[in-house]
Amino acid sequence: MAPKAGQPHAVVLAGGAGERFWPASRQHHPKPFLKVVAGKSLLDATVERARRFAGPERVWIVCGREHAPAVRRATGLPAQRVLVEPDRRNTAMAVGFAAVCIAAEDPGAVLAVLPADHVIPDARAFTAALRRAARAACGAQVLVTLGVKPTRPDTGYGYIQVGPPAAGHRGLRHVRRFVEKPEAARARRYLRRGDYLWNAGIFIWTARTILEEIEACAPDLFRALEPLRSARRRSAELLERAYRRAPSLPVDVAVMERSRRVWTIPVSFRWSDVGTWQSLADELGVRPGRSRVVAGDLAYDDTGGNLVWGQGGPIALLGVEGLAVIDTGDALLVARLDRAADLRRVVAELKAKGRRDAT
Amino acid sequence: MAPKAGQPHAVVLAGGAGERFWPASRQHHPKPFLKVVAGKSLLDATVERARRFAGPERVWIVCGREHAPAVRRATGLPAQRVLVEPDRRNTAMAVGFAAVCIAAEDPGAVLAVLPADHVIPDARAFTAALRRAARAACGAQVLVTLGVKPTRPDTGYGYIQVGPPAAGHRGLRHVRRFVEKPEAARARRYLRRGDYLWNAGIFIWTARTILEEIEACAPDLFRALEPLRSARRRSAELLERAYRRAPSLPVDVAVMERSRRVWTIPVSFRWSDVGTWQSLADELGVRPGRSRVVAGDLAYDDTGGNLVWGQGGPIALLGVEGLAVIDTGDALLVARLDRAADLRRVVAELKAKGRRDAT
Repeated sequence: MAPKAGQPHAVVLAGGAGERFWPASRQHHPKPFLKVVAGKSLLDATVERARRFAGPERVWIVCGREHAPAVRRATGLPAQRVLVEPDRRNTAMAVGFAAVCIAAEDPGAVLAVLPADHVIPDARAFTAALRRAARAACGAQVLVTLGVKPTRPDTGYGYIQVGPPAAGHRGLRHVRRFVEKPEAARARRYLRRGDYLWNAGIFIWTARTILEEIEACAPDLFRALEPLRSARRRSAELLERAYRRAPSLPVDVAVMERSRRVWTIPVSFRWSDVGTWQSLADELGVRPGRSRVVAGDLAYDDTGGNLVWGQGGPIALLGVEGLAVIDTGDALLVARLDRAADLRRVVAELKAKGRRDAT
Repeated sequence: MAPKAGQPHAVVLAGGAGERFWPASRQHHPKPFLKVVAGKSLLDATVERARRFAGPERVWIVCGREHAPAVRRATGLPAQRVLVEPDRRNTAMAVGFAAVCIAAEDPGAVLAVLPADHVIPDARAFTAALRRAARAACGAQVLVTLGVKPTRPDTGYGYIQVGPPAAGHRGLRHVRRFVEKPEAARARRYLRRGDYLWNAGIFIWTARTILEEIEACAPDLFRALEPLRSARRRSAELLERAYRRAPSLPVDVAVMERSRRVWTIPVSFRWSDVGTWQSLADELGVRPGRSRVVAGDLAYDDTGGNLVWGQGGPIALLGVEGLAVIDTGDALLVARLDRAADLRRVVAELKAKGRRDAT
């Protein structure tokens, strides 16, 4: 029996910590809240895209307890649309929890899963891709993942190798396999071959299909979700128990890499997960000789090529290039942009030193 | 007639702006006030050296009007020992003014002129050199300049070429000539030859000799000083008029390079005018792999070789070396240490932009 066609929903995942944006992003002020592009936060921009696809009534957000008040304030969403996780359990649990909640309200729902910290300037192309993917997800009962045509041999993203075209759904492709972040040489080969796409971590599926595939591919997770599905009311206690039982896995690992029902929709619009200061610098157009200022007053910069985030007082850069200079008033980072991925180590070391004020 | 032998005095010149220490040094908080070495300001350390040579009663300071209260507070000197310049007229006028004031009190005075912003760790060797120079200055009625044996081909200092030994004063030498800051190749030649010394800008002379040589070499300056010499009371008005008339020249140019009565005392103790962040870094022992923190909390630094001045919040440096990172809370400088001499340009540009808050 074909599933009853439901409404489009959008689930924004706002759970990440964004340690690689230290010191601008902190535990109390994580990456989705950073106003990095045109004075707008990544969360604001993502919710805008979510509304465009799903309409204002069917946007959901999954976030941690400590950020829920800020999320409600920032987005204006009603409380029942903000799904508060009692604990961090990575994205498999987050999308499972969202699917259970949405299915309870709209059993035929098709939903798009959007991480809250991506930059996608072309909202129209993005929405069109989501719509096409949603038709496939409903019609063929598949999990669709957005695959972005790579523009450089990036070693910071996972890749999708595309398979043959999907019958009856123009533009959709089967997925041959997922591959982890490659070495530089392999990333260059993927770029040359042309049949590899960046795995954007943006998904489109019906609530029913994802729950079926969780059951098939990640039975532990399914068992953790089960009590939430059958409960008439999802009490805090019930939720906490579910989260305690749930494995902590990315949905890619728990479901996508194992499922036989995965398609991808290749897209070529600009997309970035702005995972590091380097990728934000790229996104903002930092290049040799040209600096970009996210905030603050860059009063002097004779060399250029830097990413600057200041606090109001004048900043002078003399003879330096390729740096991230991030001054939040209570902490200061000066880092080579091409070492930005190692910022995790910095934060880990500050934590190890018991410097909670710093993290 | 041989001059009556007077007492040793010391004149601390605290007039400089220290723009090359921006942003730590500002118009309201110039370089001599910076606590850069062992938590002590350069001014404190200089006054200590001055007292060691001249005794606590005969230390004088020349400074600008805006810094006089801070100078009095910092040094505890009585008001009549703080010679307040109504305007900036460079060092020729400053030493002329000091000589006039000291001669009025002690006509046979011998005096050492000490810039307030030098670092000289070996106070004992320094005092011994000043004493020997003072005997020569009194006995032979010459201007003595301290010549520091160079340890590297520095292009930031002027040089003195030494002449033959001075008869009757062991360790003193005639001066063949003064040379301006040289190019790198010439500085290397000077270092190899061995008969060139750094011109430290530290002088020893009697009040009588310097005033005679000002008369002979810089008659304009002498005319400006004349009314101050003959006045019974040096009113503010008289002083202002004198400063308006005085040429604005360094004493090296106005007197030392022209006078025929100049000797030098070569010394080999460690001396630095810490004229730039680079020279402060050298002084503090910054070298590849080793950073130094003047103030603040360097919480992470994986590469080293940086000079850091912070404000309390954690500072993280990732993959950078050879930098000055100077955060004063209201301004931030990130500069390559080997470009530190160009900081003047930065300050000039901030001034040109009307950024008075920044300078």
